[in-house]
Amino acid sequence: MRYSEYEKFDPGDFESISGSAPVGNLGIMTDDGYPRVVPVNFVAVERKIYFHGAAHGEKYELLKDSPPVTFSIYIPYSIIPSYWIHKDNAGGATMFFKSLLYKGRCRIVDGLDEKTDMLQRLMEKYQPEGGFLPVTSEEPQYRELLGRTMVFRIDADRIHLRVKFHQKKDNAYKMKLIRHLEQRRQGPDLATAEVLRGMLEQDKKTPE
Amino acid sequence: MRYSEYEKFDPGDFESISGSAPVGNLGIMTDDGYPRVVPVNFVAVERKIYFHGAAHGEKYELLKDSPPVTFSIYIPYSIIPSYWIHKDNAGGATMFFKSLLYKGRCRIVDGLDEKTDMLQRLMEKYQPEGGFLPVTSEEPQYRELLGRTMVFRIDADRIHLRVKFHQKKDNAYKMKLIRHLEQRRQGPDLATAEVLRGMLEQDKKTPE
Repeated sequence: MRYSEYEKFDPGDFESISGSAPVGNLGIMTDDGYPRVVPVNFVAVERKIYFHGAAHGEKYELLKDSPPVTFSIYIPYSIIPSYWIHKDNAGGATMFFKSLLYKGRCRIVDGLDEKTDMLQRLMEKYQPEGGFLPVTSEEPQYRELLGRTMVFRIDADRIHLRVKFHQKKDNAYKMKLIRHLEQRRQGPDLATAEVLRGMLEQDKKTPE
Repeated sequence: MRYSEYEKFDPGDFESISGSAPVGNLGIMTDDGYPRVVPVNFVAVERKIYFHGAAHGEKYELLKDSPPVTFSIYIPYSIIPSYWIHKDNAGGATMFFKSLLYKGRCRIVDGLDEKTDMLQRLMEKYQPEGGFLPVTSEEPQYRELLGRTMVFRIDADRIHLRVKFHQKKDNAYKMKLIRHLEQRRQGPDLATAEVLRGMLEQDKKTPE
């Protein structure tokens, strides 16, 4: 929860995080007193998050009165085992990540143009290879879909970026992690190493 | 949000979902009126969720009064493109998943044995290859770690299982999806096909 951890971080991260996660998590209060987490497919457009749902049912009921919500986007990076840090003390084990937390109100999109535009954008994100008629309000095939589908929009008042890459550690430490990651090469290891290398590069450019 | 979708589903799913996700999402209300989503590493033990954090700071402040929370575990499966369902109507596009939603109170673990046991379990989940001294209260090396680390426990009153695999569709439809998935073979496609095959098998065993 230490959002200050993103100091010294590439601002280009914002779009790369919001654009690359297939699923984000909506935080919303429910009548039963539990703050609910709802995983959804989504598209991020500037400071807005769009997702869709049925025009009835629980999600619709929760969202129809424009409640305050949060939206979390989380990109997992490598698990760093404790023995890369210390020979036998477990305390250093961790997992690196990049994340965004949006805070704002969630509204039903009323305008038909905005609604069809965002359904089209959702399709372009999840089905970039095409293979469907463009989603427009004129297309008769989509009349039924547009009737039963709602599009919801979160207008963010604040967006918090948080990353964990041990970014405050010195360059020798980062080089050591990079060597381990490039040797292990499991899952996101090479992507993690690339982020760390980017931090070394950025560090070089920063005037003393 | 249609939790009834899990009808006809393998109860063994519960453990396979709770045990296989590296990150879960805590839903918790904050003083600023926003229901927050907090991604955490965790371990699931029966109906309980354990995670750890610093013994100070925002997460600790939010959790120290044993608030009602939810915890979401989500396993993404394949994206199903619309053209597997219909030649040009985008409406059928979707993404399959398995998910659990825990509801209950979150408490700080007071007992030293439970605390060290769960830190040990967290290590075993994320670092199964070992390479660390077992976490015990007797080990002098862990005195500092145990002092600065809190372990939190969610005691679930209810756990909702929700899966989306078009499980109510007929067997011919499922066979068609299986063929597509086994041909495409991207990301989780073979795992998705296996889940669908399991549903066909289960269907055979169910008496009319």
